Amino acid sequence: MDARTGLPVVGMVGAGQLARMTHQAAIALGQSLRVLADSPDDGTALVASDVVLGDYRSLDDLRAFAQGCDVVTFDHEHVPHEHLRALVADGANVQPGPSALRFAQDKLAMRERLSALGVPCPRWTAVASAADLRDFGADVGWPVVLKAATGGYDGKGVWVVESVDAAADVLASGTRLLAEEKVAIERELAAVIARSAFGQGAAWPVVETVQRDGICVQVIAPAPDLDDELAEHAQDLALRIAAELGVTGVLAVELFQTRGGLVVNELAMRPHNSAHWTIEGTRTSQFEQHVRAVLDYPLGSPRPTAPVTVMANLLGGPADVRPAGIDERVHHFMAHWPDVKLHLYGKQFRPGRKVGHVTALGDDVEEVRARAAAAADYLVNGDKE
Amino acid sequence: MDARTGLPVVGMVGAGQLARMTHQAAIALGQSLRVLADSPDDGTALVASDVVLGDYRSLDDLRAFAQGCDVVTFDHEHVPHEHLRALVADGANVQPGPSALRFAQDKLAMRERLSALGVPCPRWTAVASAADLRDFGADVGWPVVLKAATGGYDGKGVWVVESVDAAADVLASGTRLLAEEKVAIERELAAVIARSAFGQGAAWPVVETVQRDGICVQVIAPAPDLDDELAEHAQDLALRIAAELGVTGVLAVELFQTRGGLVVNELAMRPHNSAHWTIEGTRTSQFEQHVRAVLDYPLGSPRPTAPVTVMANLLGGPADVRPAGIDERVHHFMAHWPDVKLHLYGKQFRPGRKVGHVTALGDDVEEVRARAAAAADYLVNGDKE
Repeated sequence: MDARTGLPVVGMVGAGQLARMTHQAAIALGQSLRVLADSPDDGTALVASDVVLGDYRSLDDLRAFAQGCDVVTFDHEHVPHEHLRALVADGANVQPGPSALRFAQDKLAMRERLSALGVPCPRWTAVASAADLRDFGADVGWPVVLKAATGGYDGKGVWVVESVDAAADVLASGTRLLAEEKVAIERELAAVIARSAFGQGAAWPVVETVQRDGICVQVIAPAPDLDDELAEHAQDLALRIAAELGVTGVLAVELFQTRGGLVVNELAMRPHNSAHWTIEGTRTSQFEQHVRAVLDYPLGSPRPTAPVTVMANLLGGPADVRPAGIDERVHHFMAHWPDVKLHLYGKQFRPGRKVGHVTALGDDVEEVRARAAAAADYLVNGDKE
Repeated sequence: MDARTGLPVVGMVGAGQLARMTHQAAIALGQSLRVLADSPDDGTALVASDVVLGDYRSLDDLRAFAQGCDVVTFDHEHVPHEHLRALVADGANVQPGPSALRFAQDKLAMRERLSALGVPCPRWTAVASAADLRDFGADVGWPVVLKAATGGYDGKGVWVVESVDAAADVLASGTRLLAEEKVAIERELAAVIARSAFGQGAAWPVVETVQRDGICVQVIAPAPDLDDELAEHAQDLALRIAAELGVTGVLAVELFQTRGGLVVNELAMRPHNSAHWTIEGTRTSQFEQHVRAVLDYPLGSPRPTAPVTVMANLLGGPADVRPAGIDERVHHFMAHWPDVKLHLYGKQFRPGRKVGHVTALGDDVEEVRARAAAAADYLVNGDKE
């Protein structure tokens, strides 16, 4: 407990934009997020007071960090699983716990578990050899999606391969692999919910996530023209996965909508890009909700505040921006879009890097999408004359 | 400029709840507010990375603080006026500037200037002697409101006196004083606006402020049943005062509604308690808007997000709360009011102290008021059995 405030101390491993926005939300709850940062230049280290520098791969650093935290949580899933177990053995309150987090860290374990629960997934198999891949491809048809079981994100660690030969390098790399059927996707959705340690659940409206090159560029809330029954099914599925896996905090279930219904793509057990829109778009943001859930506070209302909310990521454009150029763009952005909300993550604008996002709200989905996209495009690319 | 982000550095003198909430808003703009704090336990010092400890009454401390700030602004009006002038002479970019701030620091100067501008004020006079007060009381009738020209806040520095004799102690104290007619108040309103250095203005809806013992306990937005013409008049008045006085940042104009119309009570040139509701209740909070205005960024939209928003202050109850008691109350508050937003300032709960506020939104003013009041009452007083 923080003796100055009478409130428990939340520690988050990782100090990127997710921790940064969690800190921002935590301030209102009387909190000051403690973060384990790689560098004093991490997005959260720039704005928070309680910053511990250390390596999330070092058990010593994790142990030192956990001292004095009433709960330890995460802004990424890359902490080695054995370290999570060691922290729990030390008596630390780790939320979500290792046995849940495992299914966000290891795609093979996730597929096994979800399949056992009867949750719809693409057809999949573990791939230990070229023969495994050949058999699977013969069965489901080429191309096949090959995935590293651990360590991937934002399209990294995922390869769409047309043949066993095309996968030779990956197969030879020694990476633990699984193969998945390349399903015919109508669109991608995300069902994001939160679950507290006590077991309370709360679901935000199901959203459509628009991807480009494996990276989410836009999130539309709620998912346009989504059948009510299907939306409810997706929320129920996410709440059920959270309960079965013992997830605490935010759980994002990335879904493929196919002609045959919904199948689960990925799980993330932390605040997630597909729910940044909840900051302005719902009564309780995913960041506040994550803090509430891991502290085992009762959850806040996930009710929307507007008919349509669209979030667009700011992905650094092709050219580096000279530093003063960012401030100039912020000026023009604000003049042009006085009602679009800006979120910058404290990063230099570099090609392809997620440097922030914008959120637009309104009544008409096409208008709101166009407004968010134009604002984001201007911020990352500047004038195109 | 902060080389890590390419954005200008905003420094705020003072590190209480106003700076705390400004920091929270500034994070989204890619900023990290630099604050001049009295103590490492100040509300903002608990949550911000860029904290300078020092005394706002010391010119040396102010000068050291201003180094490297692209703009210096304030969370209170107590910085000695001559120090503000000295900072400007040094070349610092002080927003609002000393010649505007003077009218928020000195009630006598404010009354002189507003009267010269033809802005409606209660009848008033400077009081240098008992005779001045006697003559004024004879003229406007007793009781009379006696005010310290400088240094007052939240009812401090204000005395309602029935006679010259009753004012003897204050008169003898050597304080610079003014006397004001005790106007027959129907209710209190506030017109809060922002003005950028460039001269752009933006007005939030006019609110009703409900006071108890000279301290604001509740703010209702918009002011219920306020005539449209009167509301527009109040906004115009505030925008005009800002322009005439050269205010930058947020300007709160506290108003008395009387049978004869509106009269100005006080001015504040900083984020103000009467606009905390804008965090959830409008598209651009007063804290974000203050940062935009002092940086001379274009202003954000002040449009409401709900038909009714009510803010209730958390004023520490009669008994000290044992530290663990606060966390317990937060639990119960969250369980009971999942859609009421909490803002804690990182302070111990002590009698009469502003320790936070809550904000409720909805459609029906009586329902929203009752909800906000019940939630606030529970948080500061606990169960009353």
